[in-house]
Amino acid sequence: MKVERVARIVPGFRAAGIHAGIKAQAKDLALIVSDERASAAGVFTRSTVVGAPVEVSRARVKRGIARAVVVNSGCSNVAMGARGIRDAHSMARIAAKAIGCEESEVLIASTGVIGQPLPLDVLARGIPQAVTALSEDGMREAAEAIRTTDTFAKLASTSLVLGGEKITLQGIAKGAGMIEPNMATMLSFLTTDAKIAPALLRAILRRVSDATFNRLSVDGETSTSDSVMLLASGRSMRTGLRAGSRDAARFEAALQAVCEDLVRQLARDGEGATKLVLVDVRGARSARDADRAARRIGNSMLVKTAIFGGDPNWGRILQTIGAARIAWHPERTKILLGGVPVFTRGRSAGPAARQRAEIALKAEEIEIRVDLGRGPGQARLFTCDLTYEYIRVNADYTT
Amino acid sequence: MKVERVARIVPGFRAAGIHAGIKAQAKDLALIVSDERASAAGVFTRSTVVGAPVEVSRARVKRGIARAVVVNSGCSNVAMGARGIRDAHSMARIAAKAIGCEESEVLIASTGVIGQPLPLDVLARGIPQAVTALSEDGMREAAEAIRTTDTFAKLASTSLVLGGEKITLQGIAKGAGMIEPNMATMLSFLTTDAKIAPALLRAILRRVSDATFNRLSVDGETSTSDSVMLLASGRSMRTGLRAGSRDAARFEAALQAVCEDLVRQLARDGEGATKLVLVDVRGARSARDADRAARRIGNSMLVKTAIFGGDPNWGRILQTIGAARIAWHPERTKILLGGVPVFTRGRSAGPAARQRAEIALKAEEIEIRVDLGRGPGQARLFTCDLTYEYIRVNADYTT
Repeated sequence: MKVERVARIVPGFRAAGIHAGIKAQAKDLALIVSDERASAAGVFTRSTVVGAPVEVSRARVKRGIARAVVVNSGCSNVAMGARGIRDAHSMARIAAKAIGCEESEVLIASTGVIGQPLPLDVLARGIPQAVTALSEDGMREAAEAIRTTDTFAKLASTSLVLGGEKITLQGIAKGAGMIEPNMATMLSFLTTDAKIAPALLRAILRRVSDATFNRLSVDGETSTSDSVMLLASGRSMRTGLRAGSRDAARFEAALQAVCEDLVRQLARDGEGATKLVLVDVRGARSARDADRAARRIGNSMLVKTAIFGGDPNWGRILQTIGAARIAWHPERTKILLGGVPVFTRGRSAGPAARQRAEIALKAEEIEIRVDLGRGPGQARLFTCDLTYEYIRVNADYTT
Repeated sequence: MKVERVARIVPGFRAAGIHAGIKAQAKDLALIVSDERASAAGVFTRSTVVGAPVEVSRARVKRGIARAVVVNSGCSNVAMGARGIRDAHSMARIAAKAIGCEESEVLIASTGVIGQPLPLDVLARGIPQAVTALSEDGMREAAEAIRTTDTFAKLASTSLVLGGEKITLQGIAKGAGMIEPNMATMLSFLTTDAKIAPALLRAILRRVSDATFNRLSVDGETSTSDSVMLLASGRSMRTGLRAGSRDAARFEAALQAVCEDLVRQLARDGEGATKLVLVDVRGARSARDADRAARRIGNSMLVKTAIFGGDPNWGRILQTIGAARIAWHPERTKILLGGVPVFTRGRSAGPAARQRAEIALKAEEIEIRVDLGRGPGQARLFTCDLTYEYIRVNADYTT
């Protein structure tokens, strides 16, 4: 599946990203509009404390229909009590009026500083401007506008042929990890012109999110605002995709490829990151055990600093698997760093392997592969290294 | 309970700390000897991969009797397979011969680089030297000799009167956190002249460890070698402490005070730490929920960098509790930083409180207190801030 990091036209959709004035200078307002009612699905943070926009969008997306997504950066509308919910509704109402649709058909998301009220006056001026700026190839600007401290805008797209029709899939995302120093937030918005009923769209998005966005961890934190939304216009297909069909599977594979590419961009741009790290655990007793080990390894401050330092330190990986308290055979365990076996059959693979691993660790993408020698369980996790810059971004910031 | 950081004489015990030659220069061999057979108890790492010394000592301490503890720093004897076990036994045998006791009465511990063989020739020369150096007030030297990259030696002692007799309690410890760049290890060795049967000693040490050493986290990691051992000579009491008695409770309180003082020293000296942080969670539905929230907060890279930066960032604390997925009432939750309420009734306590909190965060000991407003559950965790120095120590090191 060829995924490109370029903006494409997805028939049925227009988008825009503008500077409304929530931030001092940068773009801070994104709008994605479907010409007609689109099938819609969403997945949201599993945190027990969520922002007002998540509460509102989570309820609305259950209907499975949407016309637009409006997103602001610079203010997260989190921890604002009843006022937060009122303001979130107002934001959607302003957008609905400017677009000419039902308020309930507008999904919303916000990211940025918490504990501060949403500047409704700025949105009241900005949203109509964004509607004026809408264009078929506006997703690049939308990707810019949802950034907080991301160092680059994240966009991925692909196309495939389903039922004889060319279908396009496109997504944008903003930073996982402690991008906004006040609050981690991962946002992604996806569009397609495939024709899919809401229930199937929801099932596919749930599975794909579990396999991609939920396999990403910059620092083990979960934001109050994490949101992924997918809109399908149906514009390019006469008959809808059927659950269980070969075409539905191909669509799901394409969506997964787009989302995985966004996840790679997010991990690579984790706060202070210099390297993308893929943790690949195999041979666990179960998928659950593999997941546990992968998350322990990927969130270990020790392992992450070792990768930053280019140190093929298998001892830290061994120690953190031990702490995960899963069933395994240390004496059968194999650890590969950047493809080089550094630990095999319960002991060091020796100084020559270490030297080769040191060279492999100079790459920008590092794979940590662990085989626990115990069973068929597998799991992956995308993460990044832990650097001085992470400390600088998160310690020197004063709210 | 007055705990002092000075070495005392504990009747029945002698100790020594010498430079044997495992490390280039610093002291690297500690020995604690009981004149007669002492009651002994130990608690060990919960990791599923443990060092050879832990395997050996964990089995021996079950008998409840010991004459000596011999500890080396500079080499952990971890991940050495069958050879590691043989070497651990040899280390104990050398000590037993030099002291003149049964090999099974010698407990051992090792900390330092992993994947390298224990230098038995160095120990064969060093252990008899350590026996020669034994003295009644040698615990300060023993505390020096178990250090790896701890910036200071850790020692705490107290005394109390039990059954008309003055009883002394003394402990030493070495660094929790990623002290040895290859492997985190927390070690502590305690002595007392109280008379306590092994079963009671074990029960008391287990409870006290759960309340102190197991409430410490520098970076959420668990070592393969963590060990706490307590020897009671009985020298100063005619009749033993009885389980359930008032004196047993007073002894336990004294032991807890000594261990908590050691834990404070360990947290303060966590790698790169500039501040000791006490996380105190109350009002949780259960103690288990409180523990979960306290560990999430205390291990959050975001919270720890905020403390380093002196930023009263309640948003990060709120977000990390949300991620702990416990039952709580965000709108009833209260957060105090250094005694200053910064978040009350679901919202910011305002800019004046923030200013006061900024001043409070300049202290060297910081309390993060959270009241979840939900029930009677409480838990504490001792930790430290996350700094540039942590990254330096763990990234720039090359094995």
